[in-house]
Amino acid sequence: MTDRSPLRDLSAPPFATRHIGPSDADRARMLEAVGYDSVADLVAVAVPGAIRSAEPLDLPEAASEEQAIAELRALAARNRTPVSMIGLGYHDTVTPAVIRRNLLENPGWYTAYTPYQPEISQGRLEALLNFQTMVADLTGLDVAGASLLDEATAAAEAMTLARRAGRAKSPVFVVDADALPQTKAVLATRAEPLGIELAEADLSAGLPDGELFGVLVQYPGAGGRLKDFRAVAEQAHARGALVVAAADLLALTLVEAPGTLGADIAIGSSQRFGVSFGFGGPHAAYMSVREGLQRQMPGRLVGVSLDGDGRPAYRLALQTREQHIRREKATSNICTAQVLLAVIASMYAVYHGPEGLRRIAQRTHRHAAVLAAGLREGGVEIVHDDFFDTVLARVPGRAAEVVAAALEQGVNLRLADADHVGVSCDEKTTGEHLRAVWEAFGVSGVVLEDLDTATADALPAALVRTTGYLAHPVFHSHRSETAMLRYLRRLQDKDIALDRSMIPLGSCTMKLNATTEMEPITWPEFAGVHPYAPAGQAEGYLELIGDLERWLAEVTGYDAVSLQPNAGSQGEFAGLLAIRAYHRANGEHERDVCLIPSSAHGTNAASAVMAGMRVVVVACDEDGNVDVPDLKAKIDKHRDRLAAIMVTYPSTHGVYEETITEICELVHQAGGQVYVDGANLNALVGLAKPGAFGADVSHLNLHKTFCIPHGGGGPGVGPVAVRAHLAAYLPGHPFEDGPVGPVSAAPHGSAGILPISWAYVRMMGAEGLKAATEQAILSANYLARRLAPHYPVLYTGREGVVAHECIIDLRQITKETGVTVDDVAKRLIDYGFHAPTMSFPVAGTLMIEPTESEDLAELDRFVDAMVAIREEIGKVASGGYDRDDNPLRGAPHTAESLLATEWSHPYTREEAAYPVASLRDGKYWSPVRRIDQAYGDRNLVCSCPPLEAYED
Amino acid sequence: MTDRSPLRDLSAPPFATRHIGPSDADRARMLEAVGYDSVADLVAVAVPGAIRSAEPLDLPEAASEEQAIAELRALAARNRTPVSMIGLGYHDTVTPAVIRRNLLENPGWYTAYTPYQPEISQGRLEALLNFQTMVADLTGLDVAGASLLDEATAAAEAMTLARRAGRAKSPVFVVDADALPQTKAVLATRAEPLGIELAEADLSAGLPDGELFGVLVQYPGAGGRLKDFRAVAEQAHARGALVVAAADLLALTLVEAPGTLGADIAIGSSQRFGVSFGFGGPHAAYMSVREGLQRQMPGRLVGVSLDGDGRPAYRLALQTREQHIRREKATSNICTAQVLLAVIASMYAVYHGPEGLRRIAQRTHRHAAVLAAGLREGGVEIVHDDFFDTVLARVPGRAAEVVAAALEQGVNLRLADADHVGVSCDEKTTGEHLRAVWEAFGVSGVVLEDLDTATADALPAALVRTTGYLAHPVFHSHRSETAMLRYLRRLQDKDIALDRSMIPLGSCTMKLNATTEMEPITWPEFAGVHPYAPAGQAEGYLELIGDLERWLAEVTGYDAVSLQPNAGSQGEFAGLLAIRAYHRANGEHERDVCLIPSSAHGTNAASAVMAGMRVVVVACDEDGNVDVPDLKAKIDKHRDRLAAIMVTYPSTHGVYEETITEICELVHQAGGQVYVDGANLNALVGLAKPGAFGADVSHLNLHKTFCIPHGGGGPGVGPVAVRAHLAAYLPGHPFEDGPVGPVSAAPHGSAGILPISWAYVRMMGAEGLKAATEQAILSANYLARRLAPHYPVLYTGREGVVAHECIIDLRQITKETGVTVDDVAKRLIDYGFHAPTMSFPVAGTLMIEPTESEDLAELDRFVDAMVAIREEIGKVASGGYDRDDNPLRGAPHTAESLLATEWSHPYTREEAAYPVASLRDGKYWSPVRRIDQAYGDRNLVCSCPPLEAYED
Repeated sequence: MTDRSPLRDLSAPPFATRHIGPSDADRARMLEAVGYDSVADLVAVAVPGAIRSAEPLDLPEAASEEQAIAELRALAARNRTPVSMIGLGYHDTVTPAVIRRNLLENPGWYTAYTPYQPEISQGRLEALLNFQTMVADLTGLDVAGASLLDEATAAAEAMTLARRAGRAKSPVFVVDADALPQTKAVLATRAEPLGIELAEADLSAGLPDGELFGVLVQYPGAGGRLKDFRAVAEQAHARGALVVAAADLLALTLVEAPGTLGADIAIGSSQRFGVSFGFGGPHAAYMSVREGLQRQMPGRLVGVSLDGDGRPAYRLALQTREQHIRREKATSNICTAQVLLAVIASMYAVYHGPEGLRRIAQRTHRHAAVLAAGLREGGVEIVHDDFFDTVLARVPGRAAEVVAAALEQGVNLRLADADHVGVSCDEKTTGEHLRAVWEAFGVSGVVLEDLDTATADALPAALVRTTGYLAHPVFHSHRSETAMLRYLRRLQDKDIALDRSMIPLGSCTMKLNATTEMEPITWPEFAGVHPYAPAGQAEGYLELIGDLERWLAEVTGYDAVSLQPNAGSQGEFAGLLAIRAYHRANGEHERDVCLIPSSAHGTNAASAVMAGMRVVVVACDEDGNVDVPDLKAKIDKHRDRLAAIMVTYPSTHGVYEETITEICELVHQAGGQVYVDGANLNALVGLAKPGAFGADVSHLNLHKTFCIPHGGGGPGVGPVAVRAHLAAYLPGHPFEDGPVGPVSAAPHGSAGILPISWAYVRMMGAEGLKAATEQAILSANYLARRLAPHYPVLYTGREGVVAHECIIDLRQITKETGVTVDDVAKRLIDYGFHAPTMSFPVAGTLMIEPTESEDLAELDRFVDAMVAIREEIGKVASGGYDRDDNPLRGAPHTAESLLATEWSHPYTREEAAYPVASLRDGKYWSPVRRIDQAYGDRNLVCSCPPLEAYED
Repeated sequence: MTDRSPLRDLSAPPFATRHIGPSDADRARMLEAVGYDSVADLVAVAVPGAIRSAEPLDLPEAASEEQAIAELRALAARNRTPVSMIGLGYHDTVTPAVIRRNLLENPGWYTAYTPYQPEISQGRLEALLNFQTMVADLTGLDVAGASLLDEATAAAEAMTLARRAGRAKSPVFVVDADALPQTKAVLATRAEPLGIELAEADLSAGLPDGELFGVLVQYPGAGGRLKDFRAVAEQAHARGALVVAAADLLALTLVEAPGTLGADIAIGSSQRFGVSFGFGGPHAAYMSVREGLQRQMPGRLVGVSLDGDGRPAYRLALQTREQHIRREKATSNICTAQVLLAVIASMYAVYHGPEGLRRIAQRTHRHAAVLAAGLREGGVEIVHDDFFDTVLARVPGRAAEVVAAALEQGVNLRLADADHVGVSCDEKTTGEHLRAVWEAFGVSGVVLEDLDTATADALPAALVRTTGYLAHPVFHSHRSETAMLRYLRRLQDKDIALDRSMIPLGSCTMKLNATTEMEPITWPEFAGVHPYAPAGQAEGYLELIGDLERWLAEVTGYDAVSLQPNAGSQGEFAGLLAIRAYHRANGEHERDVCLIPSSAHGTNAASAVMAGMRVVVVACDEDGNVDVPDLKAKIDKHRDRLAAIMVTYPSTHGVYEETITEICELVHQAGGQVYVDGANLNALVGLAKPGAFGADVSHLNLHKTFCIPHGGGGPGVGPVAVRAHLAAYLPGHPFEDGPVGPVSAAPHGSAGILPISWAYVRMMGAEGLKAATEQAILSANYLARRLAPHYPVLYTGREGVVAHECIIDLRQITKETGVTVDDVAKRLIDYGFHAPTMSFPVAGTLMIEPTESEDLAELDRFVDAMVAIREEIGKVASGGYDRDDNPLRGAPHTAESLLATEWSHPYTREEAAYPVASLRDGKYWSPVRRIDQAYGDRNLVCSCPPLEAYED
């Protein structure tokens, strides 16, 4: 036989070789630089043997991209997407194709990070400001935030905001009986640990007697009814309580704004503004508040400030609230927003403009009115006379039969109870749909056109909207597809995302979001499933979710996983709720102390407080490791009340603490549970399992380790994983009773993006996942080794090895030269890079995480930039550069600033623009100069400024 | 009843309002500027009443985007895509998802124009240079072009190239009996009018005796056989003939390069490098030639030159060959390339690298070898021992039965004839497919793994490749998905496409390519159909094609349409062939004179020559209109030999000639046929029909009027439309006999992109199409009116009105100031615009076509730029700027050139960079300075230069 390769050796290289940046040859060079013979040798030193897994992961063999797509197509084919008239806060909508393709399917948008570095985020900040303007206008309130996780959690955030901001001392929060059922369920979950008492009331009869700190009105109600809540609001205010309106944005284009009716806070979903169902999410919730409450708002707020040249520029306002979440004093643990979805919703408003939104609303309403008229003509009782889009029909004993008949016609209705059927109209409703519904109700002989002529609108006259909205030019200037396309491109081009360069953010794991992972999420079979569709219509989803839960359990060593939490913060909360419920089930109600190391991320403490725990801080040594003697002392002190410890592993300092197993044992011996924050799971997958080395519960960040893109600041997914004894206490279904309630509105949270993580695990397999972790460790150590001659590297483990990220220390440099972390971060923009994480976990440092996806050339380009910056710093130190006027302090430099006819700086334009030669071929230009954060916080402007503000 | 809108008034605005840029309010302002009360009034003046249609177009009512997508999904569902093992030059392939999403589905790539303005086209020029390098390397020849239309037409181009470049005087061209059948058919179509005699021969027996000017060898053959054609080549060369090898690029990674074996020219398809079937196209064909033939090559050639700062820069080489096609001396009418597809193929090679391509080829081959071994083991006779991917099985009398049995198994095989079945393996072939094939042949009991072990490769030892390929770093540097993504983004960012700004190219109609039109082309149900799949598998396609043919016939007033021509040039050729065949069928063989006005595009004359006609030029008056007295004289002179006249309407000067009906009558009276070039159909749709006002045949450009994007220089589609008496002479099916042969390899040409035009017509409807035409006329007149105070506007019609484009005259300005058309065009780059068409149809002018899709703000931005440039010119005239060193002459300015530490120009950096304030918010930066065209043509370098060339 001639020499030739057998077929098995001729398969395509596994997907892992595309996901992992460095090639074999690169790896050899990197190992040489780091001083190890093999990756295994390095990992053996880096990762303590005590926690290493003995066995490889038990996962299906890695699929190729083609195979994974084929399997996903088969799963998709098992979902069904009848016409949805279920409503309940989720309504069908048309995503304009130009937005789908150029935003939702565009890595320039979806791979961007949270806009903490505002200079390289002006595009999405502008889009978010449009969102805020849209929400503030439609709700008639003064300030809107940049999105929350879903309507139900937004309601919970509004409840706690009302409690901390209001005058009333009462623990009572009154909830509209006509509130969305999932909102009620999440409010219950969130209220109980905080000692809030929920009181449900039929608000159409006015506010019930008694003290309260707040009231939530659903506008319109789950049953469709539109009620004027002015009187309720007046009564509430008279008792010192705040009024929360949960309002439908589309309805608000026709009915009076909640702010005008007396609401202090409005919340709701922007889903129906162009965002598909996705079996529950992700969708952007909104919150807006009246003047005076804005500094109490949870989540992110985009504001306008000035840049170094005095021009208006956007950035996250009041950012310190978030990055340093008030730890044990916190009342919200929200970090992530739903940026990508908020941007889509805002672009939907830009695309349609106020007149377009109004037309869609009118058409939706008219269909509902005609539908109701037809039912009435057919003898069906309609429960409410005043409604926007939802008709509640009373059919005693027949509801299930009607719903089934409608499904026969290809339409999903809402089975409200045995006697009531809800029918919601939306942007996609047609006359055909109405005819199908009539037929399902057994109504025949009604003629749509006649009814249309004969039927009045069903909006109460007192509620017809008179206040205007969306007057800003941005909602009037991009009406043709060409104009819309260019607006999207223009904004995208202002930003740095992963499609341009490495984003070396420590703790944020900005790895590849592969196209094959992303493609399925916009397939109609995944995008089009309503979260409360009958289970039989979501077979593909349910199998995918089951797979992913099993795989994540295998990867983490836990026994059960819930994908419901739609952000890491929610996963933390859910994990702590499970611990709390477990102790209570064991009769140990007094266990409420949560130990948290001082190095922890602020969210940990905030989550503990939300779960009704008391935070006790454990000291850390100077390397950021848990101070075991202090831990022992704290355990001793709180032994009987110890509920849990929360630790991040590897630590927030990027080190595998050797003492982790000991810590777990100590806590367990005291009757506590161990919560391992999965933020750094990228350093463990395939090497060690928290559930196996001693932890009881973790949350994961699918948007870090499992490839869901950061979306410019959301969506995230934060599954919670637990050992068997906690499995019963995972979050419950919003419509079912259980030991623990739901933490999100949808049973499976942001199910619509789970195909991403499914595809990642499916294509990587056990070997690929392990190889990725190993590469992440090697790459971090490579960077640490290359940077060490130039910057001190902090917090190394054995033999000077780091985990998957490294921290470089600028404190001495700052002391000697005045050059700050901020200067270096902003100067990196001139070099075309997003900055590493600044001053976390230690002020005055930069934390760098390369991830496995960056190839060697890009790592070297980053090192070259950091070394060149170090040389610039050296020039400041030596007097070669002025201490106050140098390329670092002046960074970032816009093209405009460098091209001023007069140049008065003591460094040259070329030094500013092209410190390294590679920048001459296609440089990223920052659209603004350094932004004055303090000015913006002092002068809070959180909606679109008039165009004149941009004139010279 | 209260006042409310009925449902019919609440529908979404029609798609036309998104396609057409200006709003109603904009239109009112534009009409005011132009001085008409209504669009109808303007159009009544612009368009001669004699040609106006009395009736609205008879088309289905306009569909919404959602509805069109739903209908396309229903059509797609009627296509079937079994595993394809048909072969015949079309092989299944995996488009890497990162390339599909970020290139094929990215308007930054697909809306770009042909790179005639090289400074704003460096991204796609680099990609095309990669394509050329790839082809030159793999074929072992010196120079490769930037793609041709398909393999069959490339073979025809090679044939005529051989004829004009070779020494031999013989009219004989020998064709391999094993050539692809569609290639043979197209060669026949193309040979006959030129007096070329085709001689088919079994070249495995050597070259037949006799004189010849060229020979085409298929390598490997349609039947799969790989033969060593060295001896044939030697014999051909000895007789003064040139050797053309039609070669499979994937095979060439394993077998010796055609250039090494003696080929002078290689042609073939790059389809299997990542480009889907699309039921026939578009795919990029390639051509490469040995040193000495490059200046004779048809089509486009990218070369390297130097920019104004002496840096290497890409541009189309020898461009004058094309733009001024040698009219009546022409031997090729090729204009368009298949840029988008060539770029995909080149990126496929960048993605896989030489080792990856080789592995795919090995795997493909191995599957074929194992397949053959299994068949032999089962007693099936295999015709050839030496093959790459295709196995020809002899099954006397059973072939149809085997093919049917395979289809039962979900596999398409090739029914070669009643006794032979062809089976082609490809990148997607799996063991499952082989098993299905064996079963279809009735072979059982063979074990793939055993065969794999026992079977040798089937490549003849003498042909095993020894020459290397793809050594350039670009084929080794972007192997991770992240690196690939960034490379695509980096290239895209260098270019101007419609996603950034208006491309006001006269005659090129750069209108919106709407997302909804584009989405279906990458659906697997449209992308995955083989061109020769049984008709029953393409029901959706065939219905869509039938619809589109009918709709185009209605729009143009003709009786029959063929969508087969895959470029405008091919449509022209097909139209003239129809005229020729008609005359011949009438016994008028002597009619061979084609009248062409002197103002015509060069392609017209080239097409006439290719169709065997003699070109007689008709004079034009100074307004570019046909000189009717001269026409009459020419008709008189050639009355008995008059075949046709070719006119463009509206004229290439952008004027509706009043005499068009008279011209048609004069020609008809003389027995000639009237060919109206449809290049300017965008000015007629819905207003007038060439087929109704006197023409007999037209070709259309779907990539102009009907929204197929220009793709950076292709694909185009050039349907030919005829009146009933010519219908029988439309292009035939490549596998069927008919009065006229095929002009393209695939029966329906580039069928894969026809959903775009289908969706456009479907969503615009009669009213929308007419409104688009009217808006195009209004917008052109608006520009003409706004620019007239600053630049003389040439060639207006009645009342100074233009059609859908306008020409501004710079000749006097150039005379007075030295500022040239080139200076203005390059200065527009500094303002962020692609230049208008330069010096066509009149040297020293710019032709501007706004199209209907540009909104008023963009039109005004363009006017502002042109006015500001006029002021700069004024400053040159007045001495305010130096005549030789001013912002016009220095344009375009790169950021780098403006940021040089030393600035020695007499104008400021700011004047160069920011002549208007709007540029300060997100300026496009040209990546290179003005490119020296002459230098590049003198020093022809047409493959990737070594990286050192870019060092300073």
